[in-house]
Amino acid sequence: MSTAADHDRAAAPAAPPLPPPRGPAPAEATRERLLQATHELLTERGGGNVSVSEICERANANVAMVKYCFGNKDGLMLALITRITDSFRTEFEHLAEQKLDWREKLARHLRAVVRNYMRYPYINRLLMDQLRQADEHANRMVSDSFVVPMAEFHRTLLTEAEQSGAVHRHIDPVLFFFSVVGMCEFVFTAQPWLTYGFGAALDDDLVERYADHVSELVLASIGTPSGDGNRSTE
Amino acid sequence: MSTAADHDRAAAPAAPPLPPPRGPAPAEATRERLLQATHELLTERGGGNVSVSEICERANANVAMVKYCFGNKDGLMLALITRITDSFRTEFEHLAEQKLDWREKLARHLRAVVRNYMRYPYINRLLMDQLRQADEHANRMVSDSFVVPMAEFHRTLLTEAEQSGAVHRHIDPVLFFFSVVGMCEFVFTAQPWLTYGFGAALDDDLVERYADHVSELVLASIGTPSGDGNRSTE
Repeated sequence: MSTAADHDRAAAPAAPPLPPPRGPAPAEATRERLLQATHELLTERGGGNVSVSEICERANANVAMVKYCFGNKDGLMLALITRITDSFRTEFEHLAEQKLDWREKLARHLRAVVRNYMRYPYINRLLMDQLRQADEHANRMVSDSFVVPMAEFHRTLLTEAEQSGAVHRHIDPVLFFFSVVGMCEFVFTAQPWLTYGFGAALDDDLVERYADHVSELVLASIGTPSGDGNRSTE
Repeated sequence: MSTAADHDRAAAPAAPPLPPPRGPAPAEATRERLLQATHELLTERGGGNVSVSEICERANANVAMVKYCFGNKDGLMLALITRITDSFRTEFEHLAEQKLDWREKLARHLRAVVRNYMRYPYINRLLMDQLRQADEHANRMVSDSFVVPMAEFHRTLLTEAEQSGAVHRHIDPVLFFFSVVGMCEFVFTAQPWLTYGFGAALDDDLVERYADHVSELVLASIGTPSGDGNRSTE
């Protein structure tokens, strides 16, 4: 415990996934500490297992508070997941509001999706766990948090692309959602194949190249080379 | 056991993943029955858990034979996975040899990758389990079986595309591999989002539409609308 634990703790990311809420109520503060501790432990372990007792030790919280704040460990994990996926939604909603050409929005969005898997190196595994468990409540929460809104964002961009005459075929936004998210996440999911098949590391350089690759592949498909930075004239 | 089990058994797919080997040695025959039984049980359960005792009961084999033939259950699963991924490799190697334009080869290949996830409804989950466990031996086996050969196949097609002048940018075949496989598999991995987010079923119709979508998206990106069926002049 003591020094080694303190050292690990110092190395953990300082910032919580999102700013803490306004309320200073003690249970709210504990809830935040539990989420932050889980975020730190999962980040340190790249998504490996963390136990409730480890989380509570890191958060200086009584184990009973997990039950009080979240129902159980699954509830804690779901709260962390949706906090992160809410931040993804906020990100593309903000992008949607900007006065940019659909190409530029789509290119920025795709790069952001790739980078977010690097930024939260455990989110993919948590989402995969949840998909695998096929828990209806949890998957509905995640669908509401970012899946359906992201497909709507894609629908808007694809409609703009069609109206601009850039794309000469109709692209189904739901199929598009699954295909582009699959492109973005798979290099993270299949990291062992990158390591053992190709001897490559999933480092910042590869992630940036992958973000460019995905963005170029999709933009080129929709009718224009990406990176030409065409801006809307509005 | 008896009637209900017999009924389930009758409903299981009859064909093994690949033809049985030539040798009639008793251990070889048991090995085949164990692989076939695992294939049937996983197909019936869409990739859910199956126990060694269930597999052995279905295969009419002694539990000790799992150890004798495969070392342990992980070894049995790895043998089943690589048998299937070997069949994927055989499929695209056969396609590579045909006198077809790179466009047609790529379109057929992408549709086949999508359909293979439907054909072996448990393969995605087994591969995900293996990726998650990050077992070096198993991931090297799978990489050798189809990951590296498929990226090589992609490299050949992309080189042909570049040489034909269809594509005006260099596409890294390793990044391309991860992006297209991710596109193909994600709708299967994220099936609960399809269900709870969009109220859609992952049925044959959706899979065919998805196969067309992926094929069109990638082909359009490389420089030509897919489906025009241009043939090589060789």
